[in-house]
Amino acid sequence: MNTKKLAAERAVEAIEEGMTVGLGTGSTAYFAIERLGQRVKEGLNVRAVATSKRSEEQALALGIPIVPFAEVGQIDMTIDGADEVDRNLQLIKGGGGALLREKIVAARSAKMFVVVGEDKMVDTLGAFPLPVEIVPFAHEWTLDALKALQLNPGLRMEDGEPYVTDNGNYIADCRGVSIDDPASLHAELNAIPGVVENGLFVEMAHTVVVGREDGSLDLFTRSSLPPKSVL
Amino acid sequence: MNTKKLAAERAVEAIEEGMTVGLGTGSTAYFAIERLGQRVKEGLNVRAVATSKRSEEQALALGIPIVPFAEVGQIDMTIDGADEVDRNLQLIKGGGGALLREKIVAARSAKMFVVVGEDKMVDTLGAFPLPVEIVPFAHEWTLDALKALQLNPGLRMEDGEPYVTDNGNYIADCRGVSIDDPASLHAELNAIPGVVENGLFVEMAHTVVVGREDGSLDLFTRSSLPPKSVL
Repeated sequence: MNTKKLAAERAVEAIEEGMTVGLGTGSTAYFAIERLGQRVKEGLNVRAVATSKRSEEQALALGIPIVPFAEVGQIDMTIDGADEVDRNLQLIKGGGGALLREKIVAARSAKMFVVVGEDKMVDTLGAFPLPVEIVPFAHEWTLDALKALQLNPGLRMEDGEPYVTDNGNYIADCRGVSIDDPASLHAELNAIPGVVENGLFVEMAHTVVVGREDGSLDLFTRSSLPPKSVL
Repeated sequence: MNTKKLAAERAVEAIEEGMTVGLGTGSTAYFAIERLGQRVKEGLNVRAVATSKRSEEQALALGIPIVPFAEVGQIDMTIDGADEVDRNLQLIKGGGGALLREKIVAARSAKMFVVVGEDKMVDTLGAFPLPVEIVPFAHEWTLDALKALQLNPGLRMEDGEPYVTDNGNYIADCRGVSIDDPASLHAELNAIPGVVENGLFVEMAHTVVVGREDGSLDLFTRSSLPPKSVL
């Protein structure tokens, strides 16, 4: 059973005529974009913004209209995957390195739909390495600051060089951390001068769609969404 | 009376044999580096890290040894200017666009000496535009998020194009804001996904040296420095 595909296709059913849709990045978002392309061919009228070049190209090839960010007031609904989801619908994202763009788009979205297979659901975040996007300048010091928080950071490498994000930054993957209080850790990380963003998505998921091996689906929705802090 | 030069030269007197020194950027730091160069010629043994290429080149020309960031454990003392200093020694910095690197170096410093002329001392921060470093991706949305905080942001321009920082980002200058609670605003700003850093230096200045038009100097020192959150 392809649990990701199952969940992604269910989330796409929530897209309504005339919506502006945010398209995530990664293997789960891929299935959502494929299904959205089918609905557009069937006559659904939407427009979309994408969190990566790859998702944008996939969407355009399927006939999904892509609009520039500057023309978008609010995104009605974004569909994206996650690397881990806890019981409070807090997320770790960014294994694929697109966490900053994904978070910017999610923050602009009235509703973020997160689609995952059941293997991504956890009691406590942190078994999946938490990615932290850091500036290259004096990055050794930023790694030290992460060590001081007991986060066990390792610089993500590619072909023997530091991996570089779409925004020209590096990624520190923090392994083996049990994240009991995602909101506090999120604030601590963003207070470090060399940290651009981190992979914790706190109170951003509106609905989590979970695909299960037996072919069933679960939908979890934040009962009372707190107001967005900035938008 | 050159009040900046007066204050900068006083701060340099606090540098001791064997120290690792952080060198700021801008017109005030220029005078400090000149004076430090004289002391090195007189036999003082120090090593330094710089917050900009310009300061690094000035230091090297004066015979001040520059060391790579990766070789520096802790900086003993950093000397830098500021655009505004309030009664609690909170700062606005970054009119020159180097705020991120200056903040990274300040965070690594046991003591940050801030040197200013008396015209930079204010009751409340905010008459000087507060610079916020933002990622270019979907920066229109980040400007909207700053507007939602009533910060009246304007994208800094240069030759008709957005000004680009050393780190490849843009700067939003926020004008006409009365900043009563710098710590809260600092946290709010850094919680916005598209914000990399901001020009508020909260509880970072150890000593502020103020040069006055009458040729006198004032030194203000934080009576009880709170522990650094991350280093």
